[in-house]
Amino acid sequence: MIRYHFGYDRFGRTMSGKRLRPQILLRTALEEGGTVECALDAAVAIEILHNYSLVHDDIEDGDELRHGRTTIWAQFGVAQGINAGDALCALSYLTLLHEEAVIPSDRVVDMLAVLHEANLHMCEGQALDIMFETQSTVTMSQYLEMISGKTGALFAASCELGALAAGCPRERARQYARLGRAYGRAFQIRDDALGTWGLSDITGKPSGADIARRKWSFPVVWALGTPPSADREIVTGAYARRTRLDSAGVVEVIGALDRLGARNAADDAHDLALAEADEAAGEGSIDRSGAIREFLAQGARRVA
Amino acid sequence: MIRYHFGYDRFGRTMSGKRLRPQILLRTALEEGGTVECALDAAVAIEILHNYSLVHDDIEDGDELRHGRTTIWAQFGVAQGINAGDALCALSYLTLLHEEAVIPSDRVVDMLAVLHEANLHMCEGQALDIMFETQSTVTMSQYLEMISGKTGALFAASCELGALAAGCPRERARQYARLGRAYGRAFQIRDDALGTWGLSDITGKPSGADIARRKWSFPVVWALGTPPSADREIVTGAYARRTRLDSAGVVEVIGALDRLGARNAADDAHDLALAEADEAAGEGSIDRSGAIREFLAQGARRVA
Repeated sequence: MIRYHFGYDRFGRTMSGKRLRPQILLRTALEEGGTVECALDAAVAIEILHNYSLVHDDIEDGDELRHGRTTIWAQFGVAQGINAGDALCALSYLTLLHEEAVIPSDRVVDMLAVLHEANLHMCEGQALDIMFETQSTVTMSQYLEMISGKTGALFAASCELGALAAGCPRERARQYARLGRAYGRAFQIRDDALGTWGLSDITGKPSGADIARRKWSFPVVWALGTPPSADREIVTGAYARRTRLDSAGVVEVIGALDRLGARNAADDAHDLALAEADEAAGEGSIDRSGAIREFLAQGARRVA
Repeated sequence: MIRYHFGYDRFGRTMSGKRLRPQILLRTALEEGGTVECALDAAVAIEILHNYSLVHDDIEDGDELRHGRTTIWAQFGVAQGINAGDALCALSYLTLLHEEAVIPSDRVVDMLAVLHEANLHMCEGQALDIMFETQSTVTMSQYLEMISGKTGALFAASCELGALAAGCPRERARQYARLGRAYGRAFQIRDDALGTWGLSDITGKPSGADIARRKWSFPVVWALGTPPSADREIVTGAYARRTRLDSAGVVEVIGALDRLGARNAADDAHDLALAEADEAAGEGSIDRSGAIREFLAQGARRVA
């Protein structure tokens, strides 16, 4: 089942996916003078941990497709899906433990602590996300707390683990965590914009998919915080419903978001997160070559 | 939600439960000259890991009650239930990491490896258990492999972690794992007998509960391995159905199991597992005071 999830099935197909987190981890390690060898197990571990969260998220959200492929629970049932996710979680840590071959034990313990804290933080974000599903409104600070757990935690851990694998002092590695957290926020806000305005060839999801499911994405949360207006009422009304929106409803909500200026707001919030990442980099004298920034800027282009 | 699961809710009630695994762990540590202080975080960690598996098992099995209390998923929904179990898993390891305050790092890494391996082994056992649900028969060796993961893994880890916490060499700790695995088998076979013949005041489940759900327990698997007979056909027929058995059906199956001698077979298999534990203890010169044996023998009384 785990082979199936990763696409290593009888057709030999590999699952698509950007492998963003292990790439960030390895780039951080290299930036800090480490080698690929010292960081490779950690990079694999973070990708497996990310996939454990995807497997469980797909059950929790009822998603039957990911990257055009039937999700593990839709293929093998909910019970096997939960259990396969649990096994991935254990495999992630067992992979990280392999670092003991190249890294001192006390450092490996630090790395395990980082990964487990990130896992717990992810669960906290996910608990909020599930709770928000039944709320009629979500504030910007609730939204930011939620994505800090759901996305920020693993981005932060990717940077921190790369730095620890390279032998950075703990304090310096913490600066990388701060950098990663800011990039995580930038990434998620951009992802939310893509989930609203497209482009389906990049995301694999149709435009407006997040709106149809009444997901609390950045543009919607931001729009609900604007002064009372007819356009805000359109968004509020759509999200007060308990059912999926039809395509006419989705088009109406996206129109209202456009008129309210949610797209620019998302761009601004994305840029603000990048500026905070730059600040973290400057203060900590980290990512001095700008390799991590450049890599993430490529993936984190504006929607426009 | 996690407080609710453990019974620390607004009524201040605590959830019942035997705390078997942490007790085994602490007794092993004391047996090997360790202190409660050196083993306490590990003991808490194993109890939390056990509860993570219970939370997920209850979803996978569709169980709405545990110890007379609504299960976490039945109370808060499947999505929150999966996620709360994930958080418990992370909390278990974070608790074990606290051992770093009293135990050297390389030893803590060993202990983390033991706990993660046990978790993975549990998932393997659970995957078999779920798979067996749709099978029309299960062999004794399949059954033993399944319980070796579902029950044996955590019993083995309890003993091994107690020994490691006390400062035993790895090899000696492995002997304790072997002891724990044998006790785990004895415990599960007895638990299966109790799930068939009672007693509900001990188990909190009605007699025959496992039969009604067509669970592949020791007595049934054993009965299916006997030579063809009318009684065996009763058991086979009941388990070939796809639905729950009514109480008349359960009584019929229990009668057939009794006539086939499944109850004695369960007692014999239980005693054999205890004998293997004794062998492991003798060969490794471990549990010399017999404290672990005595503790488990009390909990692992014959059904009769």
